[in-house]
Amino acid sequence: MDDIGTYLTKMRSTAPLVQNITNYVAMNIMANVMLAAGASPAMVHAREEAGEFAAIAQALSVNIGTLDPEWVSAMEEAAGVMAAAGKPWVLDPVAIGATTLRQDAGARLLALKPTVIRGNASEIMALAGADAAGRGADAADAVSAAEAAARDLAGRTGGVAAVTGPVDYVTDGSEGWRIANGAPVMPQVTALGCSLTGIVAAFAVDQPALAATVAALAYYGLAGEQAVGLSTGPGSFQPAFLDALAAMTPETLTAGARVTRA
Amino acid sequence: MDDIGTYLTKMRSTAPLVQNITNYVAMNIMANVMLAAGASPAMVHAREEAGEFAAIAQALSVNIGTLDPEWVSAMEEAAGVMAAAGKPWVLDPVAIGATTLRQDAGARLLALKPTVIRGNASEIMALAGADAAGRGADAADAVSAAEAAARDLAGRTGGVAAVTGPVDYVTDGSEGWRIANGAPVMPQVTALGCSLTGIVAAFAVDQPALAATVAALAYYGLAGEQAVGLSTGPGSFQPAFLDALAAMTPETLTAGARVTRA
Amino acid sequence: MDDIGTYLTKMRSTAPLVQNITNYVAMNIMANVMLAAGASPAMVHAREEAGEFAAIAQALSVNIGTLDPEWVSAMEEAAGVMAAAGKPWVLDPVAIGATTLRQDAGARLLALKPTVIRGNASEIMALAGADAAGRGADAADAVSAAEAAARDLAGRTGGVAAVTGPVDYVTDGSEGWRIANGAPVMPQVTALGCSLTGIVAAFAVDQPALAATVAALAYYGLAGEQAVGLSTGPGSFQPAFLDALAAMTPETLTAGARVTRA
Repeated sequence: MDDIGTYLTKMRSTAPLVQNITNYVAMNIMANVMLAAGASPAMVHAREEAGEFAAIAQALSVNIGTLDPEWVSAMEEAAGVMAAAGKPWVLDPVAIGATTLRQDAGARLLALKPTVIRGNASEIMALAGADAAGRGADAADAVSAAEAAARDLAGRTGGVAAVTGPVDYVTDGSEGWRIANGAPVMPQVTALGCSLTGIVAAFAVDQPALAATVAALAYYGLAGEQAVGLSTGPGSFQPAFLDALAAMTPETLTAGARVTRA
Repeated sequence: MDDIGTYLTKMRSTAPLVQNITNYVAMNIMANVMLAAGASPAMVHAREEAGEFAAIAQALSVNIGTLDPEWVSAMEEAAGVMAAAGKPWVLDPVAIGATTLRQDAGARLLALKPTVIRGNASEIMALAGADAAGRGADAADAVSAAEAAARDLAGRTGGVAAVTGPVDYVTDGSEGWRIANGAPVMPQVTALGCSLTGIVAAFAVDQPALAATVAALAYYGLAGEQAVGLSTGPGSFQPAFLDALAAMTPETLTAGARVTRA
Repeated sequence: MDDIGTYLTKMRSTAPLVQNITNYVAMNIMANVMLAAGASPAMVHAREEAGEFAAIAQALSVNIGTLDPEWVSAMEEAAGVMAAAGKPWVLDPVAIGATTLRQDAGARLLALKPTVIRGNASEIMALAGADAAGRGADAADAVSAAEAAARDLAGRTGGVAAVTGPVDYVTDGSEGWRIANGAPVMPQVTALGCSLTGIVAAFAVDQPALAATVAALAYYGLAGEQAVGLSTGPGSFQPAFLDALAAMTPETLTAGARVTRA
């Protein structure tokens, strides 16, 4: 973790093809975020092609933000293809506590052992079965309240769990890291959390999941910090943030990452 | 209506969770508009969860912009939950005159007595059964031509009808109000009307529907006026508009609202 | 082709109602691009209304970016209505090489003889049955490698084929044109190719397809060149590009178009 920028360099040199089964709100901004970062996103979710496409993708992100039963089948099929091939896939359990449909989908996807799980504190707690206060897609619990749930999820999947918030927490069940980069305006822009999940998937291609996740979160948060200085509200933040993602150099990332051992 | 800003203050202090069953074009910008204003939007439309989510939402907006029969069932179920619980729900009859599918959906939703109906002149006229000239999602009739239709709809639902255009008209069937705030560039940005419907729903939580709708329209139009001065076309207008929604103070809104009794 | 600007003038004076059956990623930006240009877009794809709406639309664009079998039926029905009425329709074969679902949809739509086909080099080659290297929605072949495939497609449909890239190639099977306008940042913004397909459809209303396509591509690329000078990355490019599309005058277009006979 001394040279976070190398993970960005590696991701950009791979320009990984990442399949995203994500919600309708996120699709456009998520694709733009991933293109700006240097990845190659593809939004492919139909049951008739999700598994076939997974065979050519290098990573997969799955987001339950706007679900229906057909999509859950496509998610399971694509995740199964990735898992069988040893390719990374990342789960984003949006608003999982809100309805039975989401809870059921979350449980089925968790059983397929995602490489990384990324959510806010309320979502990580609800996915782990703990009492959570979240309503809709917004967190209502502190990151610290979700650390035990994150370790539990990582232990059950053999993967990594990331709780994002003012200071993020990432763990593989034994070791933990905190990432302090970020900007308070980010939750005021819709689907930036969803989009981050795609960035995590791109970083996880051919890189160790724990370190790749930490690096992805530091990169994203630092770009957010840079964009704040160039914007005057949540509207102008969005283009400035995309510009910052594209312009970030590995050297700047290494220098600006605020990552500490938990 | 002497202190319009108080309605904004109340909405922000509530930060209402608003469920939106809206079209694919609008989902992202509508969520961003609502977040910038200070509400908590959730795009939840699947038939398997729409009614369940409505039980925890504080308001609902329903938009028929990109329909299919499954969605109409979800809309009816969620609207039924809101109506039974005495919580506000707002109908946006996008392009209702264009196809039989939309006309049927509009009639079914109208029967569930929306708290507020918000549309352009052609849509309000078509929903009321009057001859309208609109094609697609753009208005082809003047606001003044739709005033009688608006009063008719308000009378039939016991709610409020709002016709938006260069000067908006809002009525509960007996009294009427005109709101002159707004900017000519706004129809050149897609889904700003749809997004306004979500703002109306947020304002209507725990506030009287007629006054809340007038206040929401003045707030939206005034933010548009402010954004014009900071932009050079429909592209740069959008981030400037979101910034203006977020930065608006109640005092500025009260001072800038151009609201008159019809 | 001496006065490219006249095609823009004609399109704006018509303000054509263009039905778009397009992917979820593109819907919002495509509508904004078309509104900025001066057209009237309508995203109408449900099988229950796609054909009915096609009867009132002046042109149609069909994009297979996020498919399912129901949508393919809607696409075929709407395309059939346009073809029978002699109205233009444009096919965008996004990522057609990636899955069987897309290949089948492409073949069925090709049989309905689109007025114009617009894709990147890999997509045009794959649609024509040639070996293509594209993966996902990004091109991996040079425009020059797709020229024969474009002529073949034009010959088979009796229409026009356009290969877009650093220098675009447009042909009706006999004569060919190259358009050198554009900006390297454009592939870093998602769905700008999809959105261009809608612009081609708008230009093709009541104008000859070959010349209209060339003019649409020059207009789009020139607006991109203008936006580069006003932006600092892919994020700020997007609002600047929409502003440029709206502000472009016919005189500027005629002067700035870089169109040559192939």
